[in-house]
Amino acid sequence: MTPTIADCTTWDAEDPLAFTRSRFRLPEGLIYLDGNSLGALPISTPARLAAVVEREWGHGLINSWNDAEWMALPARVGARIAGLIGADADEVVAADGTSVNLYKLAAAAVGLRPERRVVVSEPGNFPTDLYVLQGLCAAMDLDLRVLPPEAIPAALTEEVALLVLTHVHYKSGRIHDMAALTAAAQAVGALTLWDLCHSAGAMPVDLNGCNADFAIGCGYKYLNGGPGAPGYMMAARRHHAAMSQPLTGWIGHAAPFAFGDDYVPADGVSRLLTGTPAVLGLTALEEGLKTFEGVSMAAVREKTIRLGELFETLAREAMGAAFDLASPADARARGSQISLRHPHGYAIVQALIEAGVVGDFRAPDVARFGFTPLYLSYADVFEAGRRLKAVMNEEHWRAPRFSERRAVT
Amino acid sequence: MTPTIADCTTWDAEDPLAFTRSRFRLPEGLIYLDGNSLGALPISTPARLAAVVEREWGHGLINSWNDAEWMALPARVGARIAGLIGADADEVVAADGTSVNLYKLAAAAVGLRPERRVVVSEPGNFPTDLYVLQGLCAAMDLDLRVLPPEAIPAALTEEVALLVLTHVHYKSGRIHDMAALTAAAQAVGALTLWDLCHSAGAMPVDLNGCNADFAIGCGYKYLNGGPGAPGYMMAARRHHAAMSQPLTGWIGHAAPFAFGDDYVPADGVSRLLTGTPAVLGLTALEEGLKTFEGVSMAAVREKTIRLGELFETLAREAMGAAFDLASPADARARGSQISLRHPHGYAIVQALIEAGVVGDFRAPDVARFGFTPLYLSYADVFEAGRRLKAVMNEEHWRAPRFSERRAVT
Repeated sequence: MTPTIADCTTWDAEDPLAFTRSRFRLPEGLIYLDGNSLGALPISTPARLAAVVEREWGHGLINSWNDAEWMALPARVGARIAGLIGADADEVVAADGTSVNLYKLAAAAVGLRPERRVVVSEPGNFPTDLYVLQGLCAAMDLDLRVLPPEAIPAALTEEVALLVLTHVHYKSGRIHDMAALTAAAQAVGALTLWDLCHSAGAMPVDLNGCNADFAIGCGYKYLNGGPGAPGYMMAARRHHAAMSQPLTGWIGHAAPFAFGDDYVPADGVSRLLTGTPAVLGLTALEEGLKTFEGVSMAAVREKTIRLGELFETLAREAMGAAFDLASPADARARGSQISLRHPHGYAIVQALIEAGVVGDFRAPDVARFGFTPLYLSYADVFEAGRRLKAVMNEEHWRAPRFSERRAVT
Repeated sequence: MTPTIADCTTWDAEDPLAFTRSRFRLPEGLIYLDGNSLGALPISTPARLAAVVEREWGHGLINSWNDAEWMALPARVGARIAGLIGADADEVVAADGTSVNLYKLAAAAVGLRPERRVVVSEPGNFPTDLYVLQGLCAAMDLDLRVLPPEAIPAALTEEVALLVLTHVHYKSGRIHDMAALTAAAQAVGALTLWDLCHSAGAMPVDLNGCNADFAIGCGYKYLNGGPGAPGYMMAARRHHAAMSQPLTGWIGHAAPFAFGDDYVPADGVSRLLTGTPAVLGLTALEEGLKTFEGVSMAAVREKTIRLGELFETLAREAMGAAFDLASPADARARGSQISLRHPHGYAIVQALIEAGVVGDFRAPDVARFGFTPLYLSYADVFEAGRRLKAVMNEEHWRAPRFSERRAVT
């Protein structure tokens, strides 16, 4: 039986995560199902940024590198992220962006297996991952093998230096079995690098429990760090002493303020750093991460699954024969999103936006809806289903104004 | 004859750059001689950032990538920088940081000279430049030759792919002859990459007039972009079609939103981009660059020289026998800073900070004072000289609290 608004109201009243909604500022009446692309604005971020800009920069000026502890931001923000991804605090630093970080960590990983020349990934991975691996493999004369998931176990041979996979697929939401694939790679002596862009902050991630080697992720989706927020890098402690990466900037130096001519890597994960910390971006990311204080990731996962199943039921009803699920049918096998395939997916997403339900579109035909339990209620998702029904019933999305494509990250 | 405060007041009244002082917010009574390390806060930045955070991110959410033109930030900010460095608007993009950008552009440059395996730079260059070149040369099996400036012309042989120099030296302020060194490198078929961190925004820079190939620089010094602001990359148009760089992220792709599996570089300088634009940092940098609107760089240079000479005269008087200039004696041969060598340079800088004059210290013994004509008056520099005299006269700087070293970028 299709849930009613009364059911949703009851679930909201019992929701153990209801307390986090007030940590965000969202436009009145808008139902935001795109936190998987850009997280919502935390209520504390504007004041924190204003303090950093006006007091720390404007008044403290250069002394704020010490007095306001700007130099500690990469490690301090990294430690907060570590708590969400099953890593130790000193195994994660926040810096640069996902693509730059992938380059650095993949180079570090293959450097630990110098006698091996193969990197394995999968087609349809988030494009920047494949592009960066193409660039790295061309520069370092490595062999990039892009194989469908089912072919990966057999492709893990003793030639393979590194397996790079995205934990939760950006388009379908499909979850890879991190523990099994890590074990399979390590069984042949290969290393693993996990892209957590669509899983960190959306579901429990247990890097150390899976014995993962390296991971990267972005700050602007589930971590609520703001548009173009810095990303992060995780390296398991066992690799710290031997690893090196090619972008050897001064902030990764053992003694950056000695101004010596020769690079000497810092101890630990700090050697993954390159340039001067991006203070504004890191500050906003730190504020974004505070929205997770007191939050159980198990509760996040449970609510995500229930919100997704609720939306799936309502969308199936709203779309009838046009309903075509592009995500795994088993809710436990997908991350925090529901993706629907429709030949007019772009126009439908645009019509929904006009109706106050923000999802997004991924070429060629996927309408993608993300469920972020920290700021979405069951009643919100019920209302999104109602608006989707209206858009489909009225064939509202066929209006010409919705068909002109514009890019959105 | 030593100038008087009356002289300074007269010069301020005649100063063609006096109108820019109101574009900055500086603490009352503070004399800030460290804009060469972190530029002061532009008065318009807090409101602009608040609008980006609260309206564009908080209200516009994901649609602001289009509606607020976030995606255009790297090119739009790059075009503003181009105007300060003698490049065309479509030859510059703003992104990442100086160190990452140096890696990308140096790799692009050596890729244009594949038969040559030598990169030349100078010792005592800003450390991150040497560190990044060391990392690049190790990764790409290139030979890095670090030679004193006087040995560089003879070292420019047909083995050399790339000459990397910092236009104005971070510690001494010495200016390299960009036109002559570029011509010397090009005469043997080598390319040039100029680091403009200490010259862009501080003096006229004419990359195209010098026929320079590539340049990088940072956003947080003279460009007033805030702590850890993004940097920028300039590539002369003649290299656009052939150049490639290894950090091939999705924002450098010809069609990032087609989500294809294969990297195809964008046309033009956009192929130097890697990851999602850092919206907060780029916005602050754009605001910082607006402080140059209507400003003649020739007038900036003229005032810089006069402020520097004034300070030199006053410091010579204040320090007596202890005065030891670490910058070129000819004001036309140095950038916008005066550096003084003193065995207790660190303690003197700390004592001056307590007296409300902010300079900085560069190991092992250099006290560095920068002159930023957009927000410094002749009277400010006169007062800085007076306070330096007091600090030296009273041997105030010998107080133990000034001797504990702390790092400042």
